[in-house]
Amino acid sequence: MSTRALEGVRVLDFTHVLSGPIATYHLALQGADVIKVESATGDTMRHYSGHAHADAVSPSFASVNAGKRSVVLDLKKASDIESVRRLVAQSDVVVENFRPGVMERLGLGYEVCRALRPDLVYCSISGFGQNGSLRGNPAIDQIIQSMSGLMTLSGEPGSPSMRVGFPIVDTFTGVLAAHAITTSLLRRERTGEGEYLDVAMLDAAMNMMISVAGPCLAGGVRPRKQGNLGYSNSPTADTFPTGDGEITLGVVRQEQFAQLAAALGREDLMTDPRFADRLARQQNAVALRDEVIAALAPRSALEWEALFADRGVAASAVRDLPTALVHPHLDGRALKLASELPDGTPIQVLGPGYIAMHNAVPPPTRPPRLGEHTAEVLAQLGESVGR
Amino acid sequence: MSTRALEGVRVLDFTHVLSGPIATYHLALQGADVIKVESATGDTMRHYSGHAHADAVSPSFASVNAGKRSVVLDLKKASDIESVRRLVAQSDVVVENFRPGVMERLGLGYEVCRALRPDLVYCSISGFGQNGSLRGNPAIDQIIQSMSGLMTLSGEPGSPSMRVGFPIVDTFTGVLAAHAITTSLLRRERTGEGEYLDVAMLDAAMNMMISVAGPCLAGGVRPRKQGNLGYSNSPTADTFPTGDGEITLGVVRQEQFAQLAAALGREDLMTDPRFADRLARQQNAVALRDEVIAALAPRSALEWEALFADRGVAASAVRDLPTALVHPHLDGRALKLASELPDGTPIQVLGPGYIAMHNAVPPPTRPPRLGEHTAEVLAQLGESVGR
Repeated sequence: MSTRALEGVRVLDFTHVLSGPIATYHLALQGADVIKVESATGDTMRHYSGHAHADAVSPSFASVNAGKRSVVLDLKKASDIESVRRLVAQSDVVVENFRPGVMERLGLGYEVCRALRPDLVYCSISGFGQNGSLRGNPAIDQIIQSMSGLMTLSGEPGSPSMRVGFPIVDTFTGVLAAHAITTSLLRRERTGEGEYLDVAMLDAAMNMMISVAGPCLAGGVRPRKQGNLGYSNSPTADTFPTGDGEITLGVVRQEQFAQLAAALGREDLMTDPRFADRLARQQNAVALRDEVIAALAPRSALEWEALFADRGVAASAVRDLPTALVHPHLDGRALKLASELPDGTPIQVLGPGYIAMHNAVPPPTRPPRLGEHTAEVLAQLGESVGR
Repeated sequence: MSTRALEGVRVLDFTHVLSGPIATYHLALQGADVIKVESATGDTMRHYSGHAHADAVSPSFASVNAGKRSVVLDLKKASDIESVRRLVAQSDVVVENFRPGVMERLGLGYEVCRALRPDLVYCSISGFGQNGSLRGNPAIDQIIQSMSGLMTLSGEPGSPSMRVGFPIVDTFTGVLAAHAITTSLLRRERTGEGEYLDVAMLDAAMNMMISVAGPCLAGGVRPRKQGNLGYSNSPTADTFPTGDGEITLGVVRQEQFAQLAAALGREDLMTDPRFADRLARQQNAVALRDEVIAALAPRSALEWEALFADRGVAASAVRDLPTALVHPHLDGRALKLASELPDGTPIQVLGPGYIAMHNAVPPPTRPPRLGEHTAEVLAQLGESVGR
């Protein structure tokens, strides 16, 4: 196998729940040795959704903790803190997502760790960051969705505030943290210097919204809700009912509209002065939408999707996620990797989300049982394992 | 100034609109020399929203193209292709987001470029990837939102399919591509080997949904819409009306509920058997919501937010994005960087979305006029600039 990007990189991982574990999952996929430090009760995600899970590995936990080792240490016990410090000295990266100040109180703040390992890359993930007036405030994904403006961007004009229906800020923050850490490792490779990274969910959310926050900062452009109507404001870049199911069209330019009209068997739309050009179509958007809906009625969304694909019209049936995940197209995309639960049950986990030709990501090791690797990791430190 | 992570890294950037330019914007922020290759009419984002923009730099264009140089070349002209090949030989990274096959037809595919520069990192961004049955299909953000399942995750149970109201897939794809490129540059630094990266918006969308796609793959857990009710299913992790405006609460655990009850002046909720523990509160969610709404009515969302912050209750008023962007907390977060339009008008652009203590990101150079750097870049090649 070829050399992995993060081969030989040791990550000491004090994170729990979602943003931090996603960050270190991406590092593990690139070949890093991620040592997950857990309390005796473990990451709460081990039991996520309230049901009992075999080996304390819930599906949510499994999906972002495969490829890691688990070590149980008591961060309130002096001897265990001493073990942690020895681990820090042997690590390249520390990641934590406690509330700001907690690692310092534990005696594991950046300056302490840096003294143990001068070229350490230390990444703190928090809701609002390590400074500023909101620093101490508690935060979870939906608090940041609310604070950042994200809840006011989706839905029909005038509709109530609505969050994105899954913890998108946690996820984006995790990937941004993995990116920040990798960038810092590249810089360390080139300069020999370590780094302290302050990753905040609120900052990450703003960055995630760059397509609307950017124009707001650069030109005072205020975002507005527009339902499923696309970024282009073209009335044929929207979602429509069909005879069975919904379909989204991505028809913006004049030649695309001609393709759509032909595919619908409605070439007459091209000669209708109401729809003659992009501006006319926007001015007669309601009438055009009615025409498109009428034309789509005889077939199902999946039938139209296939027909439109043949005609070069950008279109997709609206799928639910479980259906989308089993689309045959994905089979060649290395998106899903084989893994298993500790009891041997086969599962799939997501890969890095892209394909690297010379550095293909192999399946990660299975998600660890709580404390499964405590003895082996401490033995590597040269300590007695029978403490 | 300290050495930047991507100092001395040259990126030849053939991307347009959004996902690709976001990827190379992140590289530019880390110190890369990004050369944006444009046609004589330029990236369509220069004119985005249909209005005339001074120097063909719309707010949308400015916000993701600051820090880059612009070179106009005609990729259908043999002499210009020859210039591009000479640029490739002097570049570390090539990024493109044409439809699969276009770069090959232009004579600029990976194998050709790799022959010119063996350790090249070449990143292709597309809707569905470079292989698979959907490879040739056109795609824009909302098509991928539809295909991936994303449109079925937000909103109240039973509500119509609704996209995330801004091009979230483009953005996530761009950041993931920047991460993939940086990871490959780290691997190149360690091994000397280049890379070919195949980044697809559909794959990226699945990865962005890892919090729901992961449990679906790992345990058959089907996601469901639940309005603003949080990931925890706790009825006090939700959004509520107040006397003026909405507020989101992130109250999940028992001690958090006690803090909330006290902050509301409703300690009686703690002794009410309907709300005694987490399970009881879920079973009596409607009654609890009514109690919370009644308790919140006397004050505004902003007043409650301040009061809850003092009491350690996770809460945020629902803000719109322009309001969120000027929150005083952000002033210390290095989120916004000073830039200007070509005519000197001061603007702000977003930084990388996190703070690196030893590698602070300076303001990028202003977004370029179309072709502003053609002469200087070609001069670096040793060519006549008067062609």
